[in-house]
Amino acid sequence: MDHALTLAARGLGNTWPNPAVGCVIERDGRVLGRGWTQPGGRPHAEVMALAQAGDAARGATAHVTLEPCAHYGKTPPCAEALIRSGIAKVVVAITDPDPRVSGRGIAMLESAGISVIQGVRAAQAREQQRGFLTRITQGRPMLTLKLANSFDGRIATASGDSQWITGPEARRHVHALRLAHDAVMVGGGTARADLPALNVRGMGSVRQPVRIVVSSQDLPELPAEGRDFGPLWQVGGEPAVFMAELGAKGLTRVFCEGGGVLAASLMRAGLVDQLIGYTAGVVLGGDARPAIAAMELGRLAEARRFRLVEHRRIGADVMHRWLRD
Amino acid sequence: MDHALTLAARGLGNTWPNPAVGCVIERDGRVLGRGWTQPGGRPHAEVMALAQAGDAARGATAHVTLEPCAHYGKTPPCAEALIRSGIAKVVVAITDPDPRVSGRGIAMLESAGISVIQGVRAAQAREQQRGFLTRITQGRPMLTLKLANSFDGRIATASGDSQWITGPEARRHVHALRLAHDAVMVGGGTARADLPALNVRGMGSVRQPVRIVVSSQDLPELPAEGRDFGPLWQVGGEPAVFMAELGAKGLTRVFCEGGGVLAASLMRAGLVDQLIGYTAGVVLGGDARPAIAAMELGRLAEARRFRLVEHRRIGADVMHRWLRD
Repeated sequence: MDHALTLAARGLGNTWPNPAVGCVIERDGRVLGRGWTQPGGRPHAEVMALAQAGDAARGATAHVTLEPCAHYGKTPPCAEALIRSGIAKVVVAITDPDPRVSGRGIAMLESAGISVIQGVRAAQAREQQRGFLTRITQGRPMLTLKLANSFDGRIATASGDSQWITGPEARRHVHALRLAHDAVMVGGGTARADLPALNVRGMGSVRQPVRIVVSSQDLPELPAEGRDFGPLWQVGGEPAVFMAELGAKGLTRVFCEGGGVLAASLMRAGLVDQLIGYTAGVVLGGDARPAIAAMELGRLAEARRFRLVEHRRIGADVMHRWLRD
Repeated sequence: MDHALTLAARGLGNTWPNPAVGCVIERDGRVLGRGWTQPGGRPHAEVMALAQAGDAARGATAHVTLEPCAHYGKTPPCAEALIRSGIAKVVVAITDPDPRVSGRGIAMLESAGISVIQGVRAAQAREQQRGFLTRITQGRPMLTLKLANSFDGRIATASGDSQWITGPEARRHVHALRLAHDAVMVGGGTARADLPALNVRGMGSVRQPVRIVVSSQDLPELPAEGRDFGPLWQVGGEPAVFMAELGAKGLTRVFCEGGGVLAASLMRAGLVDQLIGYTAGVVLGGDARPAIAAMELGRLAEARRFRLVEHRRIGADVMHRWLRD
């Protein structure tokens, strides 16, 4: 299942509105087929792995990070493909909360005489599928908020000098994170002040994330959609409302890079699922620009707590990642 | 030498104005004596290790983290004690920059026919001796600045609620750090507002650090010196001047815990040698209290860079430590 989870990770940011799934088919420890959800969401992981395994799939075991689908969508159900292949056993990390699947995939397999084991590496799969699960259960994409700031939480000097607080390795890491999200989001003030590219650079030829600007005002001219730039969407109004709109459009993972006013409004609305900080070894002082605008919190107890899940050195900086439970 | 460095660390915060040294005497890998500088700075590490080894020291090897002293102070020189013991070989991490020693300890040993090896684990020893070295070479103690703050660099809500941003494990870690420094320092505003205890708690019976309040105004009544509280010193004026005064009094390691105005003035004056941050998974917003007051930096390039030397989880928080090169 660890192997299947690693394969699934390749699809993150690339498969929306479908989940990024991984599948490994093996027999007696020998890998016969490996699959992951392809860009745009099709083919599914199971279909790709079964195609590789061919006739060898008969009697083998399939390890899948998410319950195989049971409905006819744009492709026939994967549960059916697994049954037709002659697979003897299917190991599933988590069930699919999509009401069109939700246990029916497993029921189809079992009624065809396939042995099904559930819950293997469930916690890891749940974290990996958090975007898809949030869209199904809450109707909005998962939201990551990124800050790259000084030791004392500043993103620029008072005069606005911000290039660069963190080093080139951290900035490259940000591009890898953009790639693993369906969309990159900024506020209108940031879009007007910085004209940010909001694309993935230095990672080879990739599917570019959707660019989202949150603003009710006119936007400056940003590059047109093309090979180097994803679609450009403008949204505005209440955070909970536009997040639901983005969910309805199929987005599962959104990466917010500021500015401070948008970040504060998303935090206040309780819409942030993941915090990623890059902290640099430099002190800028209280007159330098804060990363987050005013939140009007009275007491500490009102502030939501996030759980530390990862910390590591990236170049000269320290990266720390936190999840909302 | 790693063993000797570990022993030396026991003395940090406890031996000023003397350096915290470690000494291991061994023969064919068998440890015959272990010593470290005792509270108050005497006996020295070599004397303690030699006393343990007794006659077995004859022909053995001594590993010392700092060049043995060569001058008659309150104790006879350690170089002489090593010679008298019949030690055959002395391994030294770094030489002592104190002009009363500075190579003379090694010369004494060599002229007595003892084989001396220098430079073993020199970088580690230099970092450990940074407080002592800073006092000898710059005439002031090494200064550590600690911040315990939110993900966005805040130390309290706008209304002043600060208990607690970080967890009990991080707060206990702070007490261990106070213990490893000669003195704990705060600004006058913090002293008046919080009446901080500035002592070490929950660590058993320990030598309490000196309490330093930086203020030119009258102080509130703070607990008298005693078993649970170190001496109380008030200093004021220019940071470079009072830091030199503290160096002249013998302090080698000072731990500054704020507030923001003092921290900013120490940073601006280039007097901070080590930054230690505890970051919690909570976002407080730009209207909450900043950790550092205004520094009036114009450009990023003017800000001093610190080098990441350690990062780890402590309880629910992430601790990161940075050194000025």
